[in-house]
Amino acid sequence: MDYATQYQEYLARVNRALETACDAFLPEESEVCRAARYSLLGGGKRIRAVLVLAVCDMLNGDAAAAEQFAAAVEMLHCYSLIHDDLPCMDNDDLRRGKPSCHKAFGEATAMLAGDVLLTEAFEVIANVEAPAIVNVRAAKALGAGAGSRGMVYGQELDLKYEALAATEEQLRLIHRNKTGALINAAVQMGAAAAQANETQCKELEAYAFGIGLVFQIVDDVLDVTGSQEQLGKPIGSDSENDKTTFVTLYGTDGAMELAQKLNDRTCASLRAEFGEKSAFLEQLAKELLVRRS
Amino acid sequence: MDYATQYQEYLARVNRALETACDAFLPEESEVCRAARYSLLGGGKRIRAVLVLAVCDMLNGDAAAAEQFAAAVEMLHCYSLIHDDLPCMDNDDLRRGKPSCHKAFGEATAMLAGDVLLTEAFEVIANVEAPAIVNVRAAKALGAGAGSRGMVYGQELDLKYEALAATEEQLRLIHRNKTGALINAAVQMGAAAAQANETQCKELEAYAFGIGLVFQIVDDVLDVTGSQEQLGKPIGSDSENDKTTFVTLYGTDGAMELAQKLNDRTCASLRAEFGEKSAFLEQLAKELLVRRS
Repeated sequence: MDYATQYQEYLARVNRALETACDAFLPEESEVCRAARYSLLGGGKRIRAVLVLAVCDMLNGDAAAAEQFAAAVEMLHCYSLIHDDLPCMDNDDLRRGKPSCHKAFGEATAMLAGDVLLTEAFEVIANVEAPAIVNVRAAKALGAGAGSRGMVYGQELDLKYEALAATEEQLRLIHRNKTGALINAAVQMGAAAAQANETQCKELEAYAFGIGLVFQIVDDVLDVTGSQEQLGKPIGSDSENDKTTFVTLYGTDGAMELAQKLNDRTCASLRAEFGEKSAFLEQLAKELLVRRS
Repeated sequence: MDYATQYQEYLARVNRALETACDAFLPEESEVCRAARYSLLGGGKRIRAVLVLAVCDMLNGDAAAAEQFAAAVEMLHCYSLIHDDLPCMDNDDLRRGKPSCHKAFGEATAMLAGDVLLTEAFEVIANVEAPAIVNVRAAKALGAGAGSRGMVYGQELDLKYEALAATEEQLRLIHRNKTGALINAAVQMGAAAAQANETQCKELEAYAFGIGLVFQIVDDVLDVTGSQEQLGKPIGSDSENDKTTFVTLYGTDGAMELAQKLNDRTCASLRAEFGEKSAFLEQLAKELLVRRS
C-alpha cells in the first residue's frame, strides 16, 4: 500500500474511533459535550493519532487498543487547542477555518469542553480492553507528555517568552515541550499497544522529538510564506506579535535547511533501528517537512 | 482511636501524599505549577481524600496505593475549584479565605494550573506501584466521576439552571453530578485500592451519593445562616443570584430535616453491609450534617 492510501486508511480508523469515543463519553444532551464534539470532529490532519496507529503497526501491536489510544491523544490535543484559543490565552477567533470553540459556544462552555476532553481522554485509555499494564503504560505516556513536564509547560514558556527576545535554545525548549512532548506521547502510546521494549521506546522518542521540531520550524516558515486560505488560520501573527521564530533567527531558507538536516538525521536513525518497516514513519516525517498547510 | 484523632491522622497522611505528588509532578521552576501548589496546598478539609483512605482502611486494602489515589482526587477537586472561580465561570475572588488562583496569578496561569492539576491527577494514578488492574480501576472511577457524566456535567447544569427556577428534581440532578460524582469517585478509588467486590462498590456508591446530597443541602443552609469568617467565602451569594436552593424550597428547618432523614438512611444502610467497621464513615457523614463551615 502506498503512503497516501495508508494514511487515508489510518485516518478512517481514527475517525471511527473518535465517533465511538464520542458516543461513549460525550453524550449529545450536554451542551459542553456538543461543544467538545464541534471542535473534536471538525477535521484536522490527525497526525498524532495516525502516529499511534503507525507505530503500533510497525511493531505488530494490538491494533484495537491503538485505535482507542489514538482517539485519546486526539482528544487531548483538541482540549489544548480549545484552551489555547480562549481570550485569556491566544484569543484566536478562527480554528481550522471555522469559529473557535468559545466563539461558537461562549467562554464558560468552551473551557468546560476542554476540561471534559482532557478528562475523557484518560477515561478512554482506562477503558481499553487490554492487559491492564498496557493501559497503565499509555496513561503514563499521556500524562508525562501533556502535563507539567510536557505540553502545559510548553504553553507556559510560550507565554513567558512571547514578548522577549528568545534564543535558539529557548525556542527549542518551548517546542520540545509544547509540540514534541505530545507527539512523543502519541508514539509511546503506539509502543505501549505493542508492549515495546526500552530500546525501541528510546529510538521512538528521538523520532518524536525530531519530527516535532521539524514541524515547528516549518510552522514558523509557513506563517511567513503561507496563505490564510491554505492554513485555515490568520498568517503573519508571529511577526505581528514580534515573536522570535526560526525564521527571524535564520531566514526562511536557513530555517528550511535546518529542518531538512534534522529530518535526514531523524529518518536515518529510525531506519537503523527498525529497518524497512519504518518506511511509513519516514515518509510521514518527510511530508511534515514539505507540507504547505 | 476516636474519630477526631483518626481524622487528623488521615489528614496528615493526605498532606504528606500531596507534598510527594507536588515534588514529583509539579516542579517549582514552573509558574503554572507554583500556582497549582498555591491552590492545592492552601488547606481545606480534604474530605474526598480522607474518604479514599477510610474506605481502603475499612476494607483492609493497600494503604500506600490509597494515599496516592487520595492525592489524585484532591488534585482533581482543586482543579475544579480553580476553573470554577475564573471570571468566565463564577468569578469568585476569594477561596478558603485568600485570593483565588486567578486573582493571585492571573487568568492564563490559573487556567493552565487547573489543566495541569487535572492531567497530573491521572498521572499520579498511573504511577502508583500496585497491580496494574488497581490503577486502571482507580482511573476509571476518577474519569467517570470527574467528566461528562459526572462533575463537569454538574457544572454545566449549575450554569444552565442558575437563572431559572429549578425543581427539587433538577437540584438533585445538579448536586448528584456536581458534588456526588466526585465523592463517589473518591470512595471507589478507596475500594479499588482494596480490590473490593461489586456488592461492596454498590453499597459504597449509595453512601457517596447520600453524603454528597447532605453536604449540598447543608451548604445551602450555611449560605443563609453562616458567616463569611467561618466559611472563608462570601455568604448570601445564592440569594443574590436568585438561585433556587433547598432553603428556598423548604426553608432552613425543612432543609435540615430532609438532610437528617437522608443521613440516617445512608448510615443505616452502610452499617447493614459493613458492620462496626463502618463507624468512621458513619461519623464522617454525621459531621457533614452538623458542620458550621
